[in-house]
Amino acid sequence: MVNCSKDMLALVKDKSAPGITITRRPIPIIEDDEVLIKVLATAICGTDYHIYSWDAWSQKRVKPPVIMGHELAGEVVEVGKNVTRVKVGDIVSCETHIVCDNCEFCRTGRGHICQHTKIIGVDTDGCFAEYVKIPAKNLIINDPSVDPRYLSIQEPLGNAVHTMLHFDIVGRTVAILGCGPIGLMAVNLAKVVGAAKIIAIEINEYRAKLAKELGADVVINPLTEDIVKRVLEETDGLGVEVLGEFSGNKQAIEQAFKYVRLGGYMSILGIPSKNIEIDLSNDVVFKGITIYGVTGRIMFDTWHQVKGLIRRLDLDKIVTHTFKLTEIDKAMEVMKSGNSGKIALIP
Amino acid sequence: MVNCSKDMLALVKDKSAPGITITRRPIPIIEDDEVLIKVLATAICGTDYHIYSWDAWSQKRVKPPVIMGHELAGEVVEVGKNVTRVKVGDIVSCETHIVCDNCEFCRTGRGHICQHTKIIGVDTDGCFAEYVKIPAKNLIINDPSVDPRYLSIQEPLGNAVHTMLHFDIVGRTVAILGCGPIGLMAVNLAKVVGAAKIIAIEINEYRAKLAKELGADVVINPLTEDIVKRVLEETDGLGVEVLGEFSGNKQAIEQAFKYVRLGGYMSILGIPSKNIEIDLSNDVVFKGITIYGVTGRIMFDTWHQVKGLIRRLDLDKIVTHTFKLTEIDKAMEVMKSGNSGKIALIP
Amino acid sequence: MVNCSKDMLALVKDKSAPGITITRRPIPIIEDDEVLIKVLATAICGTDYHIYSWDAWSQKRVKPPVIMGHELAGEVVEVGKNVTRVKVGDIVSCETHIVCDNCEFCRTGRGHICQHTKIIGVDTDGCFAEYVKIPAKNLIINDPSVDPRYLSIQEPLGNAVHTMLHFDIVGRTVAILGCGPIGLMAVNLAKVVGAAKIIAIEINEYRAKLAKELGADVVINPLTEDIVKRVLEETDGLGVEVLGEFSGNKQAIEQAFKYVRLGGYMSILGIPSKNIEIDLSNDVVFKGITIYGVTGRIMFDTWHQVKGLIRRLDLDKIVTHTFKLTEIDKAMEVMKSGNSGKIALIP
Amino acid sequence: MVNCSKDMLALVKDKSAPGITITRRPIPIIEDDEVLIKVLATAICGTDYHIYSWDAWSQKRVKPPVIMGHELAGEVVEVGKNVTRVKVGDIVSCETHIVCDNCEFCRTGRGHICQHTKIIGVDTDGCFAEYVKIPAKNLIINDPSVDPRYLSIQEPLGNAVHTMLHFDIVGRTVAILGCGPIGLMAVNLAKVVGAAKIIAIEINEYRAKLAKELGADVVINPLTEDIVKRVLEETDGLGVEVLGEFSGNKQAIEQAFKYVRLGGYMSILGIPSKNIEIDLSNDVVFKGITIYGVTGRIMFDTWHQVKGLIRRLDLDKIVTHTFKLTEIDKAMEVMKSGNSGKIALIP
Repeated sequence: MVNCSKDMLALVKDKSAPGITITRRPIPIIEDDEVLIKVLATAICGTDYHIYSWDAWSQKRVKPPVIMGHELAGEVVEVGKNVTRVKVGDIVSCETHIVCDNCEFCRTGRGHICQHTKIIGVDTDGCFAEYVKIPAKNLIINDPSVDPRYLSIQEPLGNAVHTMLHFDIVGRTVAILGCGPIGLMAVNLAKVVGAAKIIAIEINEYRAKLAKELGADVVINPLTEDIVKRVLEETDGLGVEVLGEFSGNKQAIEQAFKYVRLGGYMSILGIPSKNIEIDLSNDVVFKGITIYGVTGRIMFDTWHQVKGLIRRLDLDKIVTHTFKLTEIDKAMEVMKSGNSGKIALIP
Repeated sequence: MVNCSKDMLALVKDKSAPGITITRRPIPIIEDDEVLIKVLATAICGTDYHIYSWDAWSQKRVKPPVIMGHELAGEVVEVGKNVTRVKVGDIVSCETHIVCDNCEFCRTGRGHICQHTKIIGVDTDGCFAEYVKIPAKNLIINDPSVDPRYLSIQEPLGNAVHTMLHFDIVGRTVAILGCGPIGLMAVNLAKVVGAAKIIAIEINEYRAKLAKELGADVVINPLTEDIVKRVLEETDGLGVEVLGEFSGNKQAIEQAFKYVRLGGYMSILGIPSKNIEIDLSNDVVFKGITIYGVTGRIMFDTWHQVKGLIRRLDLDKIVTHTFKLTEIDKAMEVMKSGNSGKIALIP
Repeated sequence: MVNCSKDMLALVKDKSAPGITITRRPIPIIEDDEVLIKVLATAICGTDYHIYSWDAWSQKRVKPPVIMGHELAGEVVEVGKNVTRVKVGDIVSCETHIVCDNCEFCRTGRGHICQHTKIIGVDTDGCFAEYVKIPAKNLIINDPSVDPRYLSIQEPLGNAVHTMLHFDIVGRTVAILGCGPIGLMAVNLAKVVGAAKIIAIEINEYRAKLAKELGADVVINPLTEDIVKRVLEETDGLGVEVLGEFSGNKQAIEQAFKYVRLGGYMSILGIPSKNIEIDLSNDVVFKGITIYGVTGRIMFDTWHQVKGLIRRLDLDKIVTHTFKLTEIDKAMEVMKSGNSGKIALIP
Repeated sequence: MVNCSKDMLALVKDKSAPGITITRRPIPIIEDDEVLIKVLATAICGTDYHIYSWDAWSQKRVKPPVIMGHELAGEVVEVGKNVTRVKVGDIVSCETHIVCDNCEFCRTGRGHICQHTKIIGVDTDGCFAEYVKIPAKNLIINDPSVDPRYLSIQEPLGNAVHTMLHFDIVGRTVAILGCGPIGLMAVNLAKVVGAAKIIAIEINEYRAKLAKELGADVVINPLTEDIVKRVLEETDGLGVEVLGEFSGNKQAIEQAFKYVRLGGYMSILGIPSKNIEIDLSNDVVFKGITIYGVTGRIMFDTWHQVKGLIRRLDLDKIVTHTFKLTEIDKAMEVMKSGNSGKIALIP
């Protein structure tokens, strides 16, 4: 039992302005279905950066004060009285979406599109802290022999898995559009599951280089090359069989429809801020392609696959930086530069 | 053996101008892999109307002279020397796409997206005639007890089957967007395969009424009603699980993204002439939907399903008009009015 | 609030011997996650007959005393304090399997194969009574305009749906092996979802006749006909594309492997008491067939489909008998005769 | 053009007795749809060994004289006048099944279960020779930079791909039952596509060691260990999610049903000579598993995947022996010993 009178280090978004406050907060008190976790490692998501920098989306969505952070690995230190699946001492990670269990989607195995999802670190206090409380059902029990920093990035890795494995890529030619942290994971994943040829598309040199190391057969910079022409050249003029979109870039997405193969597949995780325009007749109907919109992770089959793949992946190359939790401003600076893979924080 | 010195009645697009010429042509002479068919019934496709009226698409695509028509039922009167599967006396229909058998798509069971498809009645002489020759591999052998007019519409029925059955609609709530002849078949099909609720969307009163008779539980006119609001009302506020698009209407398609359910499916056969604009983030990614572009019919599994369903469907209600082949102008006039289902022609 | 001091009519298996005791019991007191239901209609399952007649399986599995019954339609009269999805007045039915929510299977959307399932009416008190309490999560909210007797048979109908719709039967040729109540539902279902040809196999004359009325194109009696020969004759020598097995008969199942088509599918719900013997090489490997073992209902997608199909089915023909709950011995007598479809009981 | 008056080296099964005759035969003369190939490398299949040793199956199936062999890589030296897809100089391999293109299965993309298949090297002269003629449609065009010995084993590799990738194994726990050459390929494949844990089952020490090198996490010898117990121990008591069967051993297959996980999958390529006995109720129905019988390779999607995977696999470790074609007796001796992976022959 944790001494609840003690307080803990926490990074709190407490003002409607850029930045974050490094402060102390009471250790959370758990309910019967909850679990208290001592955070061993956490990682920074793009969403965290949005909230930190207080962009337009954050201003509409987030109500300060809230402890930020939702990617974690930690040790269970206390469990609520209804909890049986998880026990004190377990090393766990967690699904970020707290779903309602009651809507049509939750009740048919599709909680990832639950209508009443709450998000940890946005709607509830998160894990940029020494301790965090999480509903037991959201926890994944980890292999304790894996480095906590690698365990902490399973949640975004789950996004990559959901996106890349929704359609069959084994022995197929794939493009990964955008090599931010999740795109980089997607590249490595494509390698690890035996894609035939992996074409990464990225403008940032640091990330392009990393994509190459993680398994990309080709990396194309759309600012300096004719992307459609180059992809067709690399694919016998046919285009890629499966495309994973991680850029959220309007123009890049619109171009992608031109180099997806007849009968091909697009799996889209990126979130463009503007409408996109499609030649539906020529690029979807006559091509006979399939497009899938990716939200979250399939609960919890995606997590099951992540667990099965974690030993195969080069997570040591994907986590490029590690900071102390109190070095958050430095970490966010690196994030902003684009010259990073995944950034871990240690409380 | 047909007396090849004889000639036959044929409707020939022989001028780069609206209209068609009713004339006589030599009965075709078959190659070793071809079959000569005496046409018992043929039907008018939207494409035929485009060519007849010589619209912009036709002017670019069609090279007169060509005998029009590609939907047919007929009797085999002569077979080439390499042909074994089909024999004289068989009642047959035919797949319109003559595919190359050599491209990656043909060789992996996806001839419907063959890169080198030739289309009967567009690229080769068609079946608006007393006789037509067709490659043996394109023929489907029919149950001879079915009315030839119904057999002649299996090709567009295949489009409806491909579109509506690509995603599972059994026990699901569906919308059919656009009740032209193929949309009407889709409505009837949804009924026959046990869709939970069938919402048809159509502005033409004649077709709306027919949709109702063919099984639509609800028909909505988007010109007089708020279509998004109405569909949500009819679906407990959730939207439809599967949408079949047959309208080719830009605005209608854009609206459809607003009333497809979370995790839902869109199967698109309609061909809008303008680009469409999508809020990809909110209407595809966060909704977790899947979109499929439909070309032709799966060769020949779609035909196999069509054959299995033909006795269950209300084809007598779907074929609303029958004309003599020589009454083509009258038939096209009815087609133009929109006040028809499928129109059959008898040589 | 129900007056909990009152007692209720209940059919209790209270002795380790054939038969059942019609008696009175206290109305159940609900927990926070449970719901109290006033039973409007219930139906007899084969399992109930096994327990009633106290066969070898029951002797090993059931620990008297227990109120029998698990197929029901009822009105919610009280809800536990944690329950939000269901409210007093709702007309509900229920999933029989109370699953653990914690095992790998439950957590990946496959609760139907939960390792720790408890069964209502076997492991917990059931619904052959005026009232029953059920965990809220197991409830399905019904359309109140449907006859409660039809609503009460949705659970076995779910078995039929799970079995018949696991593989695609639309426009395909199917065999239904065994026309007990669930087999009869399967026949009707195959009709309602547009199977091409429906071959029912049944030895009981009453049920054979009913199968015909419910949509079977052919009914074959394997005692008087060569079943393999007849099925091949009815299918152009190819056999059936999909087989649903509901008989649990060793010999019948072994024969079925001989008339399933190359590339075909077998979905097996029946539970033979002896091992079956298969020519794996010739009848599975060279044929390229797929076999699926069916347990329960997919939670809750099968129920969702059942709800979507209920208005399309001929449930009035499937429920052949209705008795008062107190007429249980008479009802079991009819069940034993085999001359029935589904038997409903009204408290 | 090849000088057809010349003859060639050929290994001919010309007597109804064990052994093979090393002799000379005329170079084959091609038809319009055929291609003449100069054999660069060929490999020995288990079927070849059966024919060589003239076992019971061969005595019934094979009609001497026939040139044996069907696994090859070769150079196109002449093409028939109808052939366009393949040209002189191409390095090709070939699908062994010459299918009819006319049956229901061929016409719905399932030629691997064609009812009228002819097999190269069994029903027609094969590739244990300097030249072989093959129907153009059966040819796969190779990357010429790959060692012909590796190209020559793509056909059995296709069996491994068809078996192992029919069900999803990415991130899943798999067992490979039997590590003959195809089983070994399956082990390597499972590694290359990111299976979570790979359990190989094999009694031969040489092959067990090779399985380990090719990626097996665990190799179990069922003669010295309790196989069911060991597999459960290696899988948290749950069993394997997917099993690939390559042994054809009755007892091994029967045991496998005991350690496949609930909801698991079995893909069966092995061909037991005796019937197998299954507890269908407990091991299939209640477990909710799926079983798939594997014949040949999906035409030609399996080949497409093989091509996509060939650079990822350790084919140098899988081809353990290379002999001259004239050393066939020595090669067959090694094959008989079981102490080999794949054995290549060079003309």
